[in-house]
Amino acid sequence: MSSSTVANRDMANAIRALSTDAIEKAGIGHLGLPLGMADAATVLFAQFLKFDPTAPKWADRDRFVLSAGHGSMLIYSLLHLTGYPSVSMEDIKQFRQLGSKTPGHPENFITEGVETTTGPLGQGIATAVGMAIAERNMNARYGDELVDHYTYVIAGDGCLMEGISQEALTLAGHLGLGKLIVLFDDNAVTIDGGTDVADSTKQTARFASSGWQVDAVDGHDPEAVAEAIERAKANTDKPSLIACKTTIGFGAPTFAGQGKAHGGPYPADETAALRENLGLPSERFTVVPEVLDAWRAAGARSVDVRKAWEARLNALDNASEFTRAMAGKLPEGVEAAANAHKKEVAEGQATKATRQWSGAALEVLTGAIPEMIGGSADLTGSNNTKTSHTTALNSDDWAGRYMHYGVREHAMAAAMNGMAQHGGVIPYSGTFLAFADYSRGAIRLGALMGARVIHVMTHDSIGLGEDGPTHQPVEHVASLRAMPNIHVMRPCDGVETMEAWQVALSRENGPSVLALTRQGVVPARKDHTDENLVAKGAYILSEAKGEAQVVLIATGSEVGLALEAQEKLAAQDIGARVVSMPCMELFLEQSDAYQAEVLGSNLPKVGVEAGVRFGWDSVIGSDGEFVGMNGFGASAPAKDLFNHFNITSDAVVDAALKQI
Amino acid sequence: MSSSTVANRDMANAIRALSTDAIEKAGIGHLGLPLGMADAATVLFAQFLKFDPTAPKWADRDRFVLSAGHGSMLIYSLLHLTGYPSVSMEDIKQFRQLGSKTPGHPENFITEGVETTTGPLGQGIATAVGMAIAERNMNARYGDELVDHYTYVIAGDGCLMEGISQEALTLAGHLGLGKLIVLFDDNAVTIDGGTDVADSTKQTARFASSGWQVDAVDGHDPEAVAEAIERAKANTDKPSLIACKTTIGFGAPTFAGQGKAHGGPYPADETAALRENLGLPSERFTVVPEVLDAWRAAGARSVDVRKAWEARLNALDNASEFTRAMAGKLPEGVEAAANAHKKEVAEGQATKATRQWSGAALEVLTGAIPEMIGGSADLTGSNNTKTSHTTALNSDDWAGRYMHYGVREHAMAAAMNGMAQHGGVIPYSGTFLAFADYSRGAIRLGALMGARVIHVMTHDSIGLGEDGPTHQPVEHVASLRAMPNIHVMRPCDGVETMEAWQVALSRENGPSVLALTRQGVVPARKDHTDENLVAKGAYILSEAKGEAQVVLIATGSEVGLALEAQEKLAAQDIGARVVSMPCMELFLEQSDAYQAEVLGSNLPKVGVEAGVRFGWDSVIGSDGEFVGMNGFGASAPAKDLFNHFNITSDAVVDAALKQI
Repeated sequence: MSSSTVANRDMANAIRALSTDAIEKAGIGHLGLPLGMADAATVLFAQFLKFDPTAPKWADRDRFVLSAGHGSMLIYSLLHLTGYPSVSMEDIKQFRQLGSKTPGHPENFITEGVETTTGPLGQGIATAVGMAIAERNMNARYGDELVDHYTYVIAGDGCLMEGISQEALTLAGHLGLGKLIVLFDDNAVTIDGGTDVADSTKQTARFASSGWQVDAVDGHDPEAVAEAIERAKANTDKPSLIACKTTIGFGAPTFAGQGKAHGGPYPADETAALRENLGLPSERFTVVPEVLDAWRAAGARSVDVRKAWEARLNALDNASEFTRAMAGKLPEGVEAAANAHKKEVAEGQATKATRQWSGAALEVLTGAIPEMIGGSADLTGSNNTKTSHTTALNSDDWAGRYMHYGVREHAMAAAMNGMAQHGGVIPYSGTFLAFADYSRGAIRLGALMGARVIHVMTHDSIGLGEDGPTHQPVEHVASLRAMPNIHVMRPCDGVETMEAWQVALSRENGPSVLALTRQGVVPARKDHTDENLVAKGAYILSEAKGEAQVVLIATGSEVGLALEAQEKLAAQDIGARVVSMPCMELFLEQSDAYQAEVLGSNLPKVGVEAGVRFGWDSVIGSDGEFVGMNGFGASAPAKDLFNHFNITSDAVVDAALKQI
Repeated sequence: MSSSTVANRDMANAIRALSTDAIEKAGIGHLGLPLGMADAATVLFAQFLKFDPTAPKWADRDRFVLSAGHGSMLIYSLLHLTGYPSVSMEDIKQFRQLGSKTPGHPENFITEGVETTTGPLGQGIATAVGMAIAERNMNARYGDELVDHYTYVIAGDGCLMEGISQEALTLAGHLGLGKLIVLFDDNAVTIDGGTDVADSTKQTARFASSGWQVDAVDGHDPEAVAEAIERAKANTDKPSLIACKTTIGFGAPTFAGQGKAHGGPYPADETAALRENLGLPSERFTVVPEVLDAWRAAGARSVDVRKAWEARLNALDNASEFTRAMAGKLPEGVEAAANAHKKEVAEGQATKATRQWSGAALEVLTGAIPEMIGGSADLTGSNNTKTSHTTALNSDDWAGRYMHYGVREHAMAAAMNGMAQHGGVIPYSGTFLAFADYSRGAIRLGALMGARVIHVMTHDSIGLGEDGPTHQPVEHVASLRAMPNIHVMRPCDGVETMEAWQVALSRENGPSVLALTRQGVVPARKDHTDENLVAKGAYILSEAKGEAQVVLIATGSEVGLALEAQEKLAAQDIGARVVSMPCMELFLEQSDAYQAEVLGSNLPKVGVEAGVRFGWDSVIGSDGEFVGMNGFGASAPAKDLFNHFNITSDAVVDAALKQI
């Protein structure tokens, strides 16, 4: 069955041996999955997966996602056995050690050959949906000759119990992502015991209810698994679930099939008997030469296919465009178009909500950047994320550029991660800022991976008004600022909104959040400059008339209040400088000299933001004054709420006077 | 069919009229759902729901949850029509205005008769699962005479697209919550258009795959709806889904059945035609007298049942125990038992992980507080949440006190909210702190509602070790501190862990998070006192030997590092005070005088926490030094990570020396 005369089981046992050895040496790890899924994974890698270990970034490779990321030794074993230079036997020995290529969970930014970071359950399957969407979209734009690959997933019970898996599978079923194939490690065991302590779901029926092709096979029967994958590949209209009935901890005499088989290492006697049972090499970290040969042959299966693909690419007229997009570089002309828009906005001096300004910026940017794919979690009209260039992306038009994600914030964020990891597209999407809480797991994974995804989050404060406290972000800007490697930008007007988009798009190594108002904001930036001031995080928007006695630092919709307060203070002969701080993180990354220049070393400070103070002391000091929220919002018209919660220019004036 | 000779449709039209009027007056609101679901809701409230508007807190009332919370005018209309004093016609007129009883989404802390706060989609159905669990548990403990009621939910397409709904329904199906009945407003319309822009799921098949009884009826046919509810009630082994095929915006001539019917108000001509079509009163905010009579009669249906119930309660021996638990008061003897444990721990001076200390505290507390119901999202052994007093809660033993929630963090948190809103039980549950991101939507709703739920979140830093950055919280403590009305406690040893539990349990108006270590911590508290020091948020744990020149402020596992640093500094004749700050929020609520006493007004400060600095400046000042994390963690043994990221006593010493 396999690519040589070596039996599938013997090849699978090499995975089992390396996994057992590595987890034993590390003294910690998850052995249950590699033992249980080795047979099915061997079928996939040795017979089906299109990949070339010598060209791990080959654009048209099949994508493989180990959604059950705790079983990382499965993927490290596969990468080593098939010949990826990124995972040597020495790397396997360093499993879970500091600085190793083989961390506890698969991290794509550490190990070449790992397509995406997994571990938090359910993320992998949802990320894979994004990869499969990107594949269909790129296929529609570049044709079968350049883009025509499958996305495979191994998912466990845990992945399928997580809510995100439902969002992902219903989206995939709706779209009809026929080239998405999920192998479900159906071992009926979870950490707390049998899955029957907590679940009674018939997974095949569940997936079928959302339009998937479903199949159930003995996961230890390579022929059955291969036939199921053939059936899955043959159905290009529906994504496929293959429930592989497996025994967790396969081969372990007393642990197999039980909750205690999930982790590892197993006790010494259990491990010894496991090795005995399966006939694994007694010497650690070795692979029988003919088995290794078989694996290397499996790894070399697609070299010619890859070379032929490269020849096709080189012969094509639009090769450079494809290569540019896959490299994540923006096309020519974006800056010029964006700056022309900025100039127009600065000259127009219109009052609009920043979500509307974002829509206007997107109209320009999606026109200039054909690889941008937008979307919304069922709030298209509110998020202003759809433009004249972005028609719906679905099976009627895979070349479309707008995703109707449905009410699925978490899968939306994860799918965007997957699109970004796939490459060739730049995803952005919208929801209300308050619902960042729903997608936070995926937002964080994007930050960890350094994925260029852009989260448009509108209705960014009590300015949302009547929908009330469940929908009003209060702590969300703070809680996102707390997350490493993410830029939270809260622009104050149309000019800053375009600048924020430019910053987000030019950021190749991490996600951005644009926090945007529901309500109109008066223009703050009146003079055009090509310089991107948002890129500095904060800047002096309006210098004090006369000597500055106080600095008013504001973000987003509250910049207007600071400017009003500046006028009122000027009427009392008090000079107040107004600093706009659209991105606290970027500002705190600037030089001390620049920060001091903007904030004034010894000037008293007032922060103004319709959110909690938490985190602001790093800018205004613990003795600074703050005008903002102390708790949850309320349901009322926005204007009433700003008065009720005392977020007004008068409150800013009072705070300034207290400080002087 | 209804409780009088007035037709169901006429009663339903009273809901439609009030909803139309209120949304028109407010100028904003969601009219589609009240118009579409009025018929089915009338059947439920007029024929089935057991409730008494004059005793809204009657313990054995049926619970009704409007999961599709945006349709709030449905519930306000029902409360007013059935005679709840909490919603007068004047209140209806004040829909969505500041300080009104009728906010944009139903808020149970504002409007009596609203059982739980809804609006963020999917929360209601998951919260209702918790209510239904509490009902079965209380029933098992107190018998049918005291506890025997149903939990009804109205959910929309949006609720069912959210991942949390899958976690909730699979949990309910697994448990066999036969007294949970969900009416699905199957209108096939969503904000972005028809649901078919984003979804193709057969909801009845989906629910059936997890063991629900499913039914599909014409939601505008009261007899059909009533028969379906009868079938649902009759099946006490399975929860029931009744898909009510409805027309969104029912009665609106051109809007009905379309995406634009979701919101409101409709344009004037549409509204006029709607009123005409349905024969609604031309005068606003009026109800035809005989229709109001019929509604009031419906509201009075269960008065006798309620009185009989009260008579039974008063006759029972354990009435006071029931009443105590429902009032949320702790039993006698808890403080004594807790303090005895504290004393034992202080004297024992053992080194254990705080998650283990939490397990030990729970052993005492679950013994003393019979209404505590624990659980874990499939990490029971890691979270140390199960005790000898808590056996599994399921259909084999509803009196059990331990929930195997499965890998369902979000529904777990929401179900806990539901248990707390139901009353009579005190829920706590565990997961890894990193996965607070998965349940954040529900955690926030608990904070907004002021629900006493306790989140045990273990593996609270890089001390988690080898599982790596996906599993290592870095910003989670900060992001939870940013949330209003939640106490995040990070105890440093066994004594503080028990104190944190005491603080959490005695807090009746909001949730608590216990952030606990995976790794062992050396004891910090050596002398027993009955005083709860955690309750102050921070306190001087160890005064400087000699004059204090610097204050070291630490939390959780890093308190040990601060104490080590204190010794090292003392060896250099530098006096350092060590402050333990298990709860920043509680500390910042203390008097200025106490804060100054602890922190020392003019002393330089060093913060120590294996997390991000974000938020710490409010304690240490923006010029304070901080020993902690600057970004994501890594996969390695914990000890290596603390060295790698320079979170050591030597680093604390260096930071202190810089400050002096």
